[in-house]
Amino acid sequence: MNEFDRIARYFAPLSAGEAGAFALTDDAAALTIPAGQTLVVTTDSVIGGIHLPRDASPAQFAQKLLRRNLSDLAAMGALPWRYLLNLHVPATISEEWLQQFSAMLQQEQQHFGIVLVGGDSTTGGENIHLTATLLGLTPEPILRRGAKAGDDLYVTGTIGEAALALPYALGEKTPDAAAQPWLDRYFAPEPRIAVGLAMRGIASAAIDISDGLVQDFTHLCKASDLGAVVHIPHMPLARTGDIETMLTGGDDYELLFTAPASKRQNITAVAAETGVAITRIGAMQQHTEVVFLDAHNQPLHFASKGYRH
Amino acid sequence: MNEFDRIARYFAPLSAGEAGAFALTDDAAALTIPAGQTLVVTTDSVIGGIHLPRDASPAQFAQKLLRRNLSDLAAMGALPWRYLLNLHVPATISEEWLQQFSAMLQQEQQHFGIVLVGGDSTTGGENIHLTATLLGLTPEPILRRGAKAGDDLYVTGTIGEAALALPYALGEKTPDAAAQPWLDRYFAPEPRIAVGLAMRGIASAAIDISDGLVQDFTHLCKASDLGAVVHIPHMPLARTGDIETMLTGGDDYELLFTAPASKRQNITAVAAETGVAITRIGAMQQHTEVVFLDAHNQPLHFASKGYRH
Repeated sequence: MNEFDRIARYFAPLSAGEAGAFALTDDAAALTIPAGQTLVVTTDSVIGGIHLPRDASPAQFAQKLLRRNLSDLAAMGALPWRYLLNLHVPATISEEWLQQFSAMLQQEQQHFGIVLVGGDSTTGGENIHLTATLLGLTPEPILRRGAKAGDDLYVTGTIGEAALALPYALGEKTPDAAAQPWLDRYFAPEPRIAVGLAMRGIASAAIDISDGLVQDFTHLCKASDLGAVVHIPHMPLARTGDIETMLTGGDDYELLFTAPASKRQNITAVAAETGVAITRIGAMQQHTEVVFLDAHNQPLHFASKGYRH
Repeated sequence: MNEFDRIARYFAPLSAGEAGAFALTDDAAALTIPAGQTLVVTTDSVIGGIHLPRDASPAQFAQKLLRRNLSDLAAMGALPWRYLLNLHVPATISEEWLQQFSAMLQQEQQHFGIVLVGGDSTTGGENIHLTATLLGLTPEPILRRGAKAGDDLYVTGTIGEAALALPYALGEKTPDAAAQPWLDRYFAPEPRIAVGLAMRGIASAAIDISDGLVQDFTHLCKASDLGAVVHIPHMPLARTGDIETMLTGGDDYELLFTAPASKRQNITAVAAETGVAITRIGAMQQHTEVVFLDAHNQPLHFASKGYRH
C-alpha cells in the first residue's frame, strides 16, 4: 500500500468533520478561525524508545501523542479544535497496526472534539516517530508569566503515578495490581481540558507538568519572575515514600496554576464542576527562590530537577 | 547542553518577531489571525536518508525543510506567516551543526517573511528527523479542485532539474559544472510564493509538484474530476532527453495551475511581474484520462508515475 492509499484508507475518514481539510487531498488545510478567538498552537513528537517503549501498542502511541499535546492546550485554557499528524513508520508496518492506530485516533477525536486536517506519511527505518500539531481556540490564553506575589499555587489530580509506572512500562519490573492504574496514567494521561477552560478568568498563570513538577514549576516561576513556597505534605502524591521520584519524574500531565486568594471559592466550584481534585500546595513569593518544605518545615533539595530530552 | 539551553540559545531568537510565541517559553503559541484571512496550514518532514542524503549540511536541511512546506503554501496562494519546528537529532550533534542550522533558518525567515513560534526538540538515534508546520494567510485559497473543462494548463519555471540532480546528490555520480545548478535546485528548491500570490483570482486550480509532474498533475485532475491533454514539446524541461526521469522525478517544487483562456494576458503579466517563466503546456478536458502527447501527437506512457513515500 503506497502513501496515497494509506492516507485515503486510514486517515482521510478522520478529516470528515472539517470541509477545509479537503479530505486530505489538497496541498494544505484552509481553516476559518471563529471571530473573537485566538489561535493556540502546540506541537510535540512521540518517538518509540524515547517517549514510549518501542513495542507500545498502536493505540498507546495514538493516545500518548494526542494527549501530551492536548495537555499543552489545557494549560493555555484553550478548547481543542483541529490537528495535523506526521506519521513515520517502518516500511514493514502492518495493516493491523495502521487500523488500530487510526481507530484510536478516531476515538480520541470524538472524546476531545478534534478533527484531523493535514499531515504527511513516510515509511523507513525501524522506529515509530510521530508528531502532532494541535490547534486550539480561546478568547484569551492563560500564560505562564501571569503569576503575582501572594497568589495561591494549585495542582490538579495526583502527582507521581506516571513516574512510578515507568519501571513497569520499560519491563524492568513485572506489573502487579497496584501498578496497573499507574500504567494507565503513563500510557493515557488525562489532559485537564475541562479544568483549563473553567480557569479562564480565574487562574493568573498555568503550566502543564510534563517533565516533572519541580522542573515545570521552576519554569512557571521563572516566567513570572517570582519564587514560591511549596508544602510537600499538602501535595497530592500517588503514594507515600519516593518523594523525589514522584516530584521530578515526568509524564504527569496535570496542571499547575496560580490564582489570587480572592478566587478560592471559584476554584472549589471548578473542582466540583469538573470532578477533578484541585489541591492548594503553596504560594508565590516576591523573591527568586523556589522552596519545597517538608512536614518539619525544612527545605528539601532534589538531586535531579526533572526529565530532560 | 540540555533541551532548554538549546532552545534558548539557538531557537528562541528566531521567535523574536511574534509576541505570541512567548520566546518559546510557554506551553503553546497564541496567534491573532488578521481579520478577513483564512488560515492555511501544512506540515511535512525532512528525514535524513529519505528526503535528503544523511550527510547533507545543516544549511541544506534547514532550506529543504522550510522550502518544501512553503511550496504548499504557494500552491494555495497563501502568504507565508508563522511556523513550528520539531527537531530530532542524534545526541552527538555538534554545537556547530545547531549554529549553522539555526543561522540558515534565520536567513530563510527573513527571505520568506516567516517567524518561528513553537516546536519541540529531542535527541536520540543516529538520524536527523525534522518536521515543520507552516501557517499562511489568504483571503481565499486556490484549491486543487477548481479546474474547469477548457481551462488552460500552465507550469512555472523548469521541470526535471531536481530529478537530474539526484544521482549526484546521492554520490552515485561525481558532479560536473552542468550538474551544479541542478544540485542547487535539489537542495534549495524555489517555492513559487510570488506567483501563488499573484494567481489569486486568476488561477482556477493549483498544485505544487513535489512527487513528479505526472503524478501531481494526476492528483489535480482527479480533484477536479477532469482529464487533460498535455503537450510534451511545450514543456519547459531542464534539458533534452530523459523525458520520463524529468516528468516523473520528484522535488521540482514548481506550480502547476489552470486558468480560463480569458486570463492569458493576466498570466503574461504575472510572469513579467515575478520574473518567473510561466509556460502553457496543455488544456483540461471533460473526460477522465490524462494524455501526454509527444512531438508527433502520439500518447506517451510512463512506467513509473512518480515518487511514492
